[in-house]
Amino acid sequence: MTRVAIVGAGPSGLAQLRAFQSAKSKGKEIPEIVCYEKQSDWGGLWNYTWRTGLDEHGEPVHCSMYRYLWSNGPKEGLEFADYSFEEHFGKQIASYPPRAVLWDYIKGRVEKAGVRDLIRFNSIVRRITWDEETDLFTVIAHDRKADTESSETFDHVIIATGHFSVPNAPEFPGFDTFNGRILHAHDFRDAREFIDKDLLLIGTSYSAEDIGSQCWKYGARSITVSHRTAPMGFKWPDNWKEVPLLQKVEGNTATFADGNTARVDAIILCTGYQHHFPFLPDDLRLKTANRLATADLWKGVVWVHNPKLFYLGMQDQWYTFNMFDAQAWYVRDIIAGTIHVPDSVEKRLADVTARVEAEDALPDDFAAIAYQGAYVQELIAETDYPSFDIEGSDQAFFEWKKHKKEDIMGFRNHSYRSVMTGSMAPAHHTPWKDALEDSLESYLRD
Amino acid sequence: MTRVAIVGAGPSGLAQLRAFQSAKSKGKEIPEIVCYEKQSDWGGLWNYTWRTGLDEHGEPVHCSMYRYLWSNGPKEGLEFADYSFEEHFGKQIASYPPRAVLWDYIKGRVEKAGVRDLIRFNSIVRRITWDEETDLFTVIAHDRKADTESSETFDHVIIATGHFSVPNAPEFPGFDTFNGRILHAHDFRDAREFIDKDLLLIGTSYSAEDIGSQCWKYGARSITVSHRTAPMGFKWPDNWKEVPLLQKVEGNTATFADGNTARVDAIILCTGYQHHFPFLPDDLRLKTANRLATADLWKGVVWVHNPKLFYLGMQDQWYTFNMFDAQAWYVRDIIAGTIHVPDSVEKRLADVTARVEAEDALPDDFAAIAYQGAYVQELIAETDYPSFDIEGSDQAFFEWKKHKKEDIMGFRNHSYRSVMTGSMAPAHHTPWKDALEDSLESYLRD
Repeated sequence: MTRVAIVGAGPSGLAQLRAFQSAKSKGKEIPEIVCYEKQSDWGGLWNYTWRTGLDEHGEPVHCSMYRYLWSNGPKEGLEFADYSFEEHFGKQIASYPPRAVLWDYIKGRVEKAGVRDLIRFNSIVRRITWDEETDLFTVIAHDRKADTESSETFDHVIIATGHFSVPNAPEFPGFDTFNGRILHAHDFRDAREFIDKDLLLIGTSYSAEDIGSQCWKYGARSITVSHRTAPMGFKWPDNWKEVPLLQKVEGNTATFADGNTARVDAIILCTGYQHHFPFLPDDLRLKTANRLATADLWKGVVWVHNPKLFYLGMQDQWYTFNMFDAQAWYVRDIIAGTIHVPDSVEKRLADVTARVEAEDALPDDFAAIAYQGAYVQELIAETDYPSFDIEGSDQAFFEWKKHKKEDIMGFRNHSYRSVMTGSMAPAHHTPWKDALEDSLESYLRD
Repeated sequence: MTRVAIVGAGPSGLAQLRAFQSAKSKGKEIPEIVCYEKQSDWGGLWNYTWRTGLDEHGEPVHCSMYRYLWSNGPKEGLEFADYSFEEHFGKQIASYPPRAVLWDYIKGRVEKAGVRDLIRFNSIVRRITWDEETDLFTVIAHDRKADTESSETFDHVIIATGHFSVPNAPEFPGFDTFNGRILHAHDFRDAREFIDKDLLLIGTSYSAEDIGSQCWKYGARSITVSHRTAPMGFKWPDNWKEVPLLQKVEGNTATFADGNTARVDAIILCTGYQHHFPFLPDDLRLKTANRLATADLWKGVVWVHNPKLFYLGMQDQWYTFNMFDAQAWYVRDIIAGTIHVPDSVEKRLADVTARVEAEDALPDDFAAIAYQGAYVQELIAETDYPSFDIEGSDQAFFEWKKHKKEDIMGFRNHSYRSVMTGSMAPAHHTPWKDALEDSLESYLRD
C-alpha cells in the first residue's frame, strides 16, 4: 500500500488530511498516512502558547501568534469552500475574528472529518532522506514523550511546516549593549508588557503594522516604525511615527538614517521569517524567497528535483486556508495518479520560470491578489474541491485594502459577503480599537 | 589516519583541541580533527549574544549568559593548570571576573595553541550515526553560510555541546493569560529591562540567585523567589522575599502555596536546563539527570554502550574548566590507546553504578565539592595534564560557600589564592554591588 508522510498538522497539513478523508468518504482508496506534529495539539501557528524560544521539550517554538490577535484580513478571503463559517458556528459571524475563533473553525472541519488519529503529536521530524534504489523516503522522528526515535519509509512526503515560524533577525550596531528588551515579532506575546513604553519596530510588513497597532491599542506611550525602503503610509495616530532605517542604538537612544534620534524602551524586529527545514538534506531542501511564485516547485507544490516530494503553503500569502486546500487536493490527486506531473526536470522548471516571470510583471498588490486568486482557481479546476467565486473573493481583498487605507485602526469594523454561502457578515458588536477582550465567547456574542 | 569529530567549541571542545595540540607539541602523533561549531565564534556559553530564542540562521541560540554577569564562583576553582590567569593577563587579577574577562582567558589559551583552523564555524551538526559494519561514525553537518550539508566519517566522536543551553521550562496555571513577560533564565539578557519592576523568579539554584541579585543591583523594585522544596536562605535585602511554590497567576497576581499573593510585572523561570542532543539517535544519545555522577558514562566520559563515543562536561559542576581539561586529556589518551577502557558493557556500567552510589551517599555540598575534586584528581593522575593542589582548590570552594552565607551581595569582594601559581588574588577596586560597568577594561584597571 502507498504510504504518505505529512510533516506538520497546521492549516496546510490538516488540509491534506481533510483532502484524503474527503476522497475516502466518496469511496476512493487512499494511502496509508502518518502525519507528524511537533506540538502537542493541532492548528500550527493558530495553536497559541505563552512560550517563546524553545518549548517544553527544548524544540523551537512554532507559534508566532500573540494574545489579542485578530485576523488581519477578512475571513471571507480564507473561508473553506467545503466547510463554511456558518456551518461551523451555526450562524454568520463578523469578518475579522480573533485567533481563538479561527482556531476553533480550523479544528471544527478536521474534528468532523475524524482524522485526529492519523497524527502523531509531540513528534518532531529529525531527518528525511531519499533512497534512489528503493524509491522510498525514510522519515526519522523523535517522539518527545517517549524520548525515542522511529524510522519509517514512505512513497511520498508532504512538507507542511509553514514558513512563518523561524525569525529572520538582522543585527544593528549597538544591539549588544541596548538597555532593554530586543525581540523578534515571533516572540511577541502580550501587548500589555509594553504599556507606557516607547517602542521601536523595525519593518513595514504585517507584523509591524499589527503589533504596532496592538501595542498602541493597549496603551504603549509611542510607536516608532523604522523602514528600509518606504513607510507604510497609513494614517497613523498622533503618537505613531514612521522613520527611516535604524543606524545604531546607544544606551536607549536610537539613531535613524536621517540623523534624528528617539529614546526607546524596547525594540521589536518585524523583519520577517525564513523558510527553514533543518530535517531536510540538500537534495530535498527548498530554498526560496518569500514570494507568490516560489523557486523549484512545479504548480507551486511539487519539488521539481524529485516529484515524489511535495511542499504546501510555501508561497507568500494573500490567499491562505483555501489556497492550502487547493494545493492539498491537487497533491492528493497527483499521488492518486489522476493528475500527471511532467516527467522531466526541465519541463517542471519551465512552469516555475513562467510563474516567476508572471509575478515579476505584476504592477501592484491588486494585481498580485488576482494573480494568486487565479493560481488557486487553476489548481481547483483540476480536482473535486468545491469551486467558488474567486473573483468575488479577490474583491473582498480589494475592499479590505481600501478600508485599511481609509482607517488603519478601523478597517476591522467592516463586513464582507461570503463567496461560499452568499450571506453578508454582521457588524461586530464592538469597534476593534475598543474591544480589549479577545475570547471566542466574547466575539460570538450578539 | 584516525579521524576524530568534536561537536562544540566551547570550554569543553576547546579543552579537547588544546589536549590534542599539547600532545602534538610534545612530538606525539595526533588524529585528524574536525571540530563543528554552531556559532560564528568560539567560547560556547561565554560567547555573548543579544539574541534570544533562535539565532540569525534560525538555529537555537546557545548563549544563556547575560550582561553584567560576573563569575558566581572564584576563578581559583576553574583555573587551567597549563595556562594561569597570571600568564594570560600578565598579572594576578581579582577573583570573580565578569564574563568578558573569562571569555578572554579561555580564548587566550587556544589562540596560543593555534587550533582555530580545526574548527568549522557556523556549522551545526544535524545527525550522527554509527555503522557497525565499518566501525565508523557519519557526521552530517549544515554549513549555514554556504547553506549546504557535509557528510564525513570518523573513528571517534566527542560530544562537547554543554548542557546549560536548552531550558527546562515548566508551565503554571494562568501563564497563557499573564499580562507581562514570562521568560526562562536562558533568555534573560539585560537587568535594566526590569528597573522599577516587581519580579517573580521560580527556582532556587544559581540562575535564581544570580539573576535576582543582578536585577536587585540594577534597580528592580522587588524580587520574589518561589521555591518548590526550600528557600535558598541567604540574608537577602529588604525588598527580596522567598515564598513557597507558585500555584497560579491571574492577570498580574501570583498566588503561592501558602495562600499569599503578590503583584508581579514579569516572571523569570530559573528552572534549569535539559541535556538535549537532537542530532543523536537512540543508540548514541545520553539521557541523564543533572548530577555529579551521570548515567551511562564510564569515568564520566565514555559512552558505555559504544566506547568510541565520548561526552565531555555532562556532569553538574562545581569544577568546570579544569574538569573539562581533565576529561579532555583523558579522552585523548583513550583514543591514543594509552588508557584502556574495559571491554564489556557490564564492566563499564559497574563504574557508573559505583559513582552514582558514592554520590548518593554524600552528606552535603562540601562533600560534593570534595567528591568532584577527587574525580578530577582521578583522571589527571592518568595523563600528563599538570597536577595541581586539588584539595587547595576544594578549599577555595569551601571559603566561597561561607562567604556567600555571610553576605550574598558581598561575597564577590573576597579574594583567594591560586593553586596554580601560589599567588593571592588582589581585592577588586570596586565592591560588586557598586560596579555597574562590566567590561574587561574596567575590571583589569588597578
